[in-house]
Amino acid sequence: MTDPLRLGIAGLGTVGVGVVKIVQQHADLLTARSGRPVTISAVSARSREKDRGVDISGYDWEDDPVALAKREDVDLLVELMGGEDGPAKAATEAAIAAGKDVVTANKAMLAHHGQAMAEAAEDAGRVIRFEAAVAGGIPVVKALTEGLAGNRITRVMGVMNGTCNYILTRMQSAGLSYDEVFEEANQLGFLEADPNLDVGGIDAGHKLALLSAIAYGTQVDFGGVALEGIGQVTIEDINQAAELGFRIKLLGVARLSGRGLEQRMTPCLVPANSPIGQLEGGTNMVVLEGDSVDQIVLRGPGAGEGPTASAVMADVLDIARGIRVSTFGQPARSLVAANRAAVATAAPYYLRLALRDKPGALAKVAAVLSDCGISIDRMRQRSHGGEDAPVLIVTHKTAAPSLQEALEALPRTDVVTGHPVALRIEDV
Amino acid sequence: MTDPLRLGIAGLGTVGVGVVKIVQQHADLLTARSGRPVTISAVSARSREKDRGVDISGYDWEDDPVALAKREDVDLLVELMGGEDGPAKAATEAAIAAGKDVVTANKAMLAHHGQAMAEAAEDAGRVIRFEAAVAGGIPVVKALTEGLAGNRITRVMGVMNGTCNYILTRMQSAGLSYDEVFEEANQLGFLEADPNLDVGGIDAGHKLALLSAIAYGTQVDFGGVALEGIGQVTIEDINQAAELGFRIKLLGVARLSGRGLEQRMTPCLVPANSPIGQLEGGTNMVVLEGDSVDQIVLRGPGAGEGPTASAVMADVLDIARGIRVSTFGQPARSLVAANRAAVATAAPYYLRLALRDKPGALAKVAAVLSDCGISIDRMRQRSHGGEDAPVLIVTHKTAAPSLQEALEALPRTDVVTGHPVALRIEDV
Repeated sequence: MTDPLRLGIAGLGTVGVGVVKIVQQHADLLTARSGRPVTISAVSARSREKDRGVDISGYDWEDDPVALAKREDVDLLVELMGGEDGPAKAATEAAIAAGKDVVTANKAMLAHHGQAMAEAAEDAGRVIRFEAAVAGGIPVVKALTEGLAGNRITRVMGVMNGTCNYILTRMQSAGLSYDEVFEEANQLGFLEADPNLDVGGIDAGHKLALLSAIAYGTQVDFGGVALEGIGQVTIEDINQAAELGFRIKLLGVARLSGRGLEQRMTPCLVPANSPIGQLEGGTNMVVLEGDSVDQIVLRGPGAGEGPTASAVMADVLDIARGIRVSTFGQPARSLVAANRAAVATAAPYYLRLALRDKPGALAKVAAVLSDCGISIDRMRQRSHGGEDAPVLIVTHKTAAPSLQEALEALPRTDVVTGHPVALRIEDV
Repeated sequence: MTDPLRLGIAGLGTVGVGVVKIVQQHADLLTARSGRPVTISAVSARSREKDRGVDISGYDWEDDPVALAKREDVDLLVELMGGEDGPAKAATEAAIAAGKDVVTANKAMLAHHGQAMAEAAEDAGRVIRFEAAVAGGIPVVKALTEGLAGNRITRVMGVMNGTCNYILTRMQSAGLSYDEVFEEANQLGFLEADPNLDVGGIDAGHKLALLSAIAYGTQVDFGGVALEGIGQVTIEDINQAAELGFRIKLLGVARLSGRGLEQRMTPCLVPANSPIGQLEGGTNMVVLEGDSVDQIVLRGPGAGEGPTASAVMADVLDIARGIRVSTFGQPARSLVAANRAAVATAAPYYLRLALRDKPGALAKVAAVLSDCGISIDRMRQRSHGGEDAPVLIVTHKTAAPSLQEALEALPRTDVVTGHPVALRIEDV
């Protein structure tokens, strides 16, 4: 195989420009490693005139990414436009129909249409690869699909949205409120155009759904991800958690058990001295657990031009080398529909309540918890000046329905004011 | 490809048994993921009668691993005997000559004969894969060879011998001497038959040499690894380093610069709050740095039945899936001979000296360092009861020849007793 692998790049934002730079600067390296030259035939983006700091004059220009995808001189479509539908989907489908392979960084598109797209690609004898869609520069799709292929995967966990981790760690280090740090992040350009994609956990949920499919041989089931963003996390909870030896992270967890597939992307407490607990700023971390390998932890930059382009190029080089793995690690038509677990696995929880300063108030809370079958590991009542006394409780392992019952019962007592805060403590 | 991939397993120690278990227990999973059954035709080991806790009665037995390697019903030799020469080398060469692929966990064999073996394999159109040879269950060979293939690699670092890391962290946590913990580790069966393979850094040096070849496209050059074991690390240095905010690790570093290829496996100081500094016990960690991806950190179990078998099976599944990457990531005959760097990159150093209690002693030390062009970042003299006062110095970035000059000059003064201890501080 000494014919060049000819790319068509759709989308010249940060990542697309990063890919062009690698192809231009490392031609020798790419040829040495893959055994054939990697070239760019044509590119497509919204504006032809924009100065991107990289010379694209040697490539043909296509206004229409679908036309790009169909070009005879393109072997591989590199889809970097983003968006779950629209041009990205149209170009990907056109590429597959025209017999081209596709490399994409588009988690939203694959979280929604991955199953159909993978089936179409495999029916046509083509591959869709998406290393850059999950955790930026960390080669986690490869580690899970290939590196741990001899394992029955038992759990996948990850901090996979750098913006959320930046906000949570910045709140703690600077003692600022969520709203203040959100505004900072916005000023710094860290947020998506629709910030809810980040802080609502949707972006990270897309990524988790893709990893789940690989891990468990199930069809991508983004709708089955229990999503909860970080908007309700207060500086008070961050500080209280820290005093108890925990950090709060937007943590994705996917596990398959006899009860079905459980996928969550929610704020959780994790031990401060665990690898995930120690993760600061915008860095990503994915934890993969398998029956033979025990636990592998991968850490690296989750976004940015260089890291994301590095992941795109890993897929491109795989294809140049003749590595053709199914999109989700096994033939798409052999993936089974996910059987969603009805409730989350039991876990300890952190509870924060505001109590009226009444005799017997604490006893009443303890009684409610006990009635719900919840046993208390630690309880701490803070000194307080005003009416309401904050109370922190760490429970022993608690079934999710018991917790729900308690969360409904507590406000009905005459001693708890407002709504209790409950955060899961994940054993990492 | 629905024909089974038929294995011949040579070596039924811990790892071999782990591989047999995975093949037996996960037949469904392996077939689903690779698209074809993975079976075992025959096995070979020293004792046929030994009870290994796994049923091997369904496989043919070969007393001679070379005969195993040549069998017509073996497509892939899984070499798990170990040893740089002898039966492992003979069986590997026989397999290649007979047109079989080889998966091995044998770092010593590849560190010494990898270039010749890779050339022979590639001439014959076969592959040799060795994920299990480096850092146990961590899929680091794959991450470096494929996951970061779009990067010019700038540095590879790793804590890749769990026994050494166990000894160093146990010395610190229990306040025990090297000799005491060495004896403990020996009792626990953590040490190789020749303990110098572990504590002398040889085993970890083999691993580093293999990663270097992939990272830099150079022929494996184990002889070029500057090796220094952990036998000279004292509890005093561990404690002093801790007070300065550092940990001592047996750290492998490989970097290629205009000065050539630098490979070191030596005790180094690293910041206590860095991922490597936080690594406790027998766990391994590898840090990969590339021009686009910045830094990726991989952490996981570096040894043991399950993790090592997991890595072996990753290679087996790759071959079952038709993934055929060159042993060192590019054709062996395109690897260039490593041009060894004459001296290590400049770095800050930790120095510990014993000073006679004489007026002007410290000034004399400072003068010697200054004469050698070494500038001092921090200096600390401990209170002391006896004759000799321990002095700790952290230097600014220092060229290796300057350090060497100072280490020779200091004992020639009349104020320094014994030999100064110097440990490199690696920026991780």
